[in-house]
Amino acid sequence: MNDFRNKVLNYHKKNQGKLAVIPTQKIINQIDLSMAYTPGVALPCQEIHKDNEKAYDYTIKGKMVAIITDGSAVLGLGNIGPMAALPVMEGKAMLLHQFSGVQAFPLTIDTQNPDKLIGTIQLLSPNFGAIMLEDISAPNCVYIESKLQETLNIPVFHDDQHGTAIVVTAALINALKVVKKPKEDIKVVVAGLGAAGSAIIKLLSKLGIKQIYGYDIQGVVSKEKYHQYNPVIKDLIDHSYLHFSKAEDLGDLLKEKDVFIGVSAKDILAPSMIKTMNSNAIIFAMANPEPEINPFEALKAGARIVGTGRSDYPNQINNVLVFPGLMKGVLKYRIKHITDDVKIMTAKAIANLVPKNSLNDQNILPNIFDEAVVQAIVNSLSKIKKDQS
Amino acid sequence: MNDFRNKVLNYHKKNQGKLAVIPTQKIINQIDLSMAYTPGVALPCQEIHKDNEKAYDYTIKGKMVAIITDGSAVLGLGNIGPMAALPVMEGKAMLLHQFSGVQAFPLTIDTQNPDKLIGTIQLLSPNFGAIMLEDISAPNCVYIESKLQETLNIPVFHDDQHGTAIVVTAALINALKVVKKPKEDIKVVVAGLGAAGSAIIKLLSKLGIKQIYGYDIQGVVSKEKYHQYNPVIKDLIDHSYLHFSKAEDLGDLLKEKDVFIGVSAKDILAPSMIKTMNSNAIIFAMANPEPEINPFEALKAGARIVGTGRSDYPNQINNVLVFPGLMKGVLKYRIKHITDDVKIMTAKAIANLVPKNSLNDQNILPNIFDEAVVQAIVNSLSKIKKDQS
Repeated sequence: MNDFRNKVLNYHKKNQGKLAVIPTQKIINQIDLSMAYTPGVALPCQEIHKDNEKAYDYTIKGKMVAIITDGSAVLGLGNIGPMAALPVMEGKAMLLHQFSGVQAFPLTIDTQNPDKLIGTIQLLSPNFGAIMLEDISAPNCVYIESKLQETLNIPVFHDDQHGTAIVVTAALINALKVVKKPKEDIKVVVAGLGAAGSAIIKLLSKLGIKQIYGYDIQGVVSKEKYHQYNPVIKDLIDHSYLHFSKAEDLGDLLKEKDVFIGVSAKDILAPSMIKTMNSNAIIFAMANPEPEINPFEALKAGARIVGTGRSDYPNQINNVLVFPGLMKGVLKYRIKHITDDVKIMTAKAIANLVPKNSLNDQNILPNIFDEAVVQAIVNSLSKIKKDQS
Repeated sequence: MNDFRNKVLNYHKKNQGKLAVIPTQKIINQIDLSMAYTPGVALPCQEIHKDNEKAYDYTIKGKMVAIITDGSAVLGLGNIGPMAALPVMEGKAMLLHQFSGVQAFPLTIDTQNPDKLIGTIQLLSPNFGAIMLEDISAPNCVYIESKLQETLNIPVFHDDQHGTAIVVTAALINALKVVKKPKEDIKVVVAGLGAAGSAIIKLLSKLGIKQIYGYDIQGVVSKEKYHQYNPVIKDLIDHSYLHFSKAEDLGDLLKEKDVFIGVSAKDILAPSMIKTMNSNAIIFAMANPEPEINPFEALKAGARIVGTGRSDYPNQINNVLVFPGLMKGVLKYRIKHITDDVKIMTAKAIANLVPKNSLNDQNILPNIFDEAVVQAIVNSLSKIKKDQS
């Protein structure tokens, strides 16, 4: 363990972090200088001044994603603040570049006041082609993301919400093919109603799933408790995304349901609960780092398909399948808003990459290192272009 | 001309801007992933959470400069706004990297309210090791820079003010060696009392020059006009940096003076004025792009040493001699504030690079492509370290 620790710290130290900002061309002499800087640089400035869209051609804007956090909910570490969150943001930028070639710069912002954070990001937006929000605590993150989407003219993507929702949707599309159940008929329970849970519920509704039930630390979502809920859960109820249930606990709620989706906490799901679900039960246990149930226990209890967020079990349901292709696509086609349609198209593009003949209980999603994923998403987003311009 | 235009626009377009953000290492497999991202990344996060200074070791902070503008006073272009200013900021980042290896990321911020700009930069500071302000209009820029210096724990450098002041100071140190006048005795006129002019006046005072007179668009600085001046000029008077004069115009003011320093407007200096200055007059005519007087006219009128901001005349007095070495030095030694001492040491390091035997009327500064400049500044800043820690 000490060995891994030293290795990791050295990995971060040897180049002072994990990213580098370098010029795309060298300045060797006065002629280079006159093009890159004064007087030549005035020409692209004037072009952009006349037409702001030209910034996509002549500056880094068109290829650059801002990866932004306030450090309030970092990985499993919690609220460690902006400076300590920077290694995670750099890591995310690395992943984005490694998987898609898209460039990103991390910005860790020293406020956890949602309106100040929104204001700061709005003021920074001229520089960037897209914004990825990361590791911002719920329920603030939902408000922050929706406010930014409304006010900015560049796409805003909160990976913890929509990355997770898209990859879960992709996984469920394929799982339903395997178990041969039509999406209109199934009953789904989502455990954990924070940023990820609420986004999953909305996107599954958009996909056409009609019966979704919610469960979180306050228990089964019910009419009686409405006044206790935070704005995120109230919004799910107000827009009829969630069905009410009179079930008393998670075990009771899961009876005769088809799908369990967990973005909650380890070990909340017991084998006995799975036994009372409908046959061919689908279990996505994505609590991090320890899932809601050990996948082998879930299978032993009768689940047909089990997925987790981890790479050491089959069916890894990981956001990294989503954001590289999605960011590459929105930049390429200058898509200004990541609408529900964009999300559903992305989920379907991922799902369709698993060919029918290799689709099975233990293979519902492409491998995260499969290079075809990014291209498939980008191709599918090419169809969006016209509708948004 | 059309040819140059096409060449420059293509230069900016072919790589989508002039900078790239790339990972310092590749992620090939799950082991890399476990070091760069989860779970390994938690280790540097925890180290930084315990001790924020560790961010200099484990993240990009220790090597990264933010180049920030509001787009209010861009080169010769004026107030073209943040998005159109981005090519200039990218160019500056290129120059910084080319001359010193220091990395920088440009941020163009969409507000011209000074307090909002200050607030935004404060919130962004965890990410960066130093901040360079660029092309922000006077007098706001003076207020913004001083407020940031006061409140931030990283160095803040406004190149238009202090880069110019330092290189002018270096040039004057060497010019005085050539003409053999002691700095205590000379009389200096500074024309243009904006960001650059006020910083020059303060730094020359700090160097030990006692008699400095000011001139700007409102005429010769005098007691009677005190109430008309903006806070920047009032501050120069209140702190006795400027002497009052009863002279009626620039020609009158320059009589029996030793040095003219112009950061004002083209053609304000007439040959007849130079003829009434003391012998061995020193003229730094740095209005951009056209100097206050054509250097050959100035020499013909009797000036001994003439410098401009331009590369096509002798004695180019250019900020690029300053900021690459200064930024490299403050990052290397984690200098938190760019004090007057730091500025004077930097000016002396630049001046001392011109060996006595090659110092003459037409050679008072090192060439901007001389690689020794950066190292000389960094070496000289190594002495600061102890005093500030």
